[in-house]
Amino acid sequence: MRILGIDPGFDRTGWGVIEDVGGRLSFVDCGCIQTSADDSYEKRLQDVRDGMRDLVETHKPDAVSIEQLFFQTNAKTAIKVGMARGVAVLAVADAGLPIVEPTPNQVKSGTTGNGAADKKQVQEMVVRLLKLATIPKPDDAADALAIAIVGSTLYRPHRS
Amino acid sequence: MRILGIDPGFDRTGWGVIEDVGGRLSFVDCGCIQTSADDSYEKRLQDVRDGMRDLVETHKPDAVSIEQLFFQTNAKTAIKVGMARGVAVLAVADAGLPIVEPTPNQVKSGTTGNGAADKKQVQEMVVRLLKLATIPKPDDAADALAIAIVGSTLYRPHRS
Repeated sequence: MRILGIDPGFDRTGWGVIEDVGGRLSFVDCGCIQTSADDSYEKRLQDVRDGMRDLVETHKPDAVSIEQLFFQTNAKTAIKVGMARGVAVLAVADAGLPIVEPTPNQVKSGTTGNGAADKKQVQEMVVRLLKLATIPKPDDAADALAIAIVGSTLYRPHRS
Repeated sequence: MRILGIDPGFDRTGWGVIEDVGGRLSFVDCGCIQTSADDSYEKRLQDVRDGMRDLVETHKPDAVSIEQLFFQTNAKTAIKVGMARGVAVLAVADAGLPIVEPTPNQVKSGTTGNGAADKKQVQEMVVRLLKLATIPKPDDAADALAIAIVGSTLYRPHRS
């Protein structure tokens, strides 16, 4: 099955696609939906939605893994990223695809075995698990691959 | 011109429609988009979007006034309401309508003359300004009318 991982954001939404064949994972593609600070924020929300639609149409994932958001502080940022995340979830729901939502801790522990792992450790495990030559760039794309990897373990379709 | 006011929320999105003829305001309609706690949250985001679409189609507003969100605490709530607000803004942007975004303070001062007014004072001014017999129910709908009233003063179309 094919899993699309999403690291939601307002400026940049990281995405990564992996293939899971009976637990054997392989890399398909990754990148970023980038919005422009020169645009109105409603245009930027449309860009996130349009980018999500394009990803779903291009890669035809069986499920989408979208990381949950956690903020200790700064409700202003939380609202902004929350708006982008809402639009991304809406696009997936409109496509009729199942959604799994790992927490940041699940993404860390699911890739490294350690819920307190740092970003670098997670990225190194992405490289190992997907047999890549180097850490994918930008960071948001590498994070999205980690979210896809953990999503593949959380997603249990009835048909399997 | 016709203004649709929106009090964004995840459980309930209040809405109110007013007509502004050269500064003379009149009430058109108000209500709530209610989502069900029994549904998945992606379904609830779709319900907010669908409700917004219906409002735009039914009432054909010239502009939409959506209150800005401010949270002092509780980033978890901020993310949730932010997701709903993002979806509401997206629906308005997709309809190609202009958006104005009063802050909660602007809504208070724009209706009562006092940025520190309480909810009850705002609602009483909504009744007076729109020549209503009673305060509209529920509260979210009354709030949305206040947001529409202040939106009508903020919205300055080039064509006027």
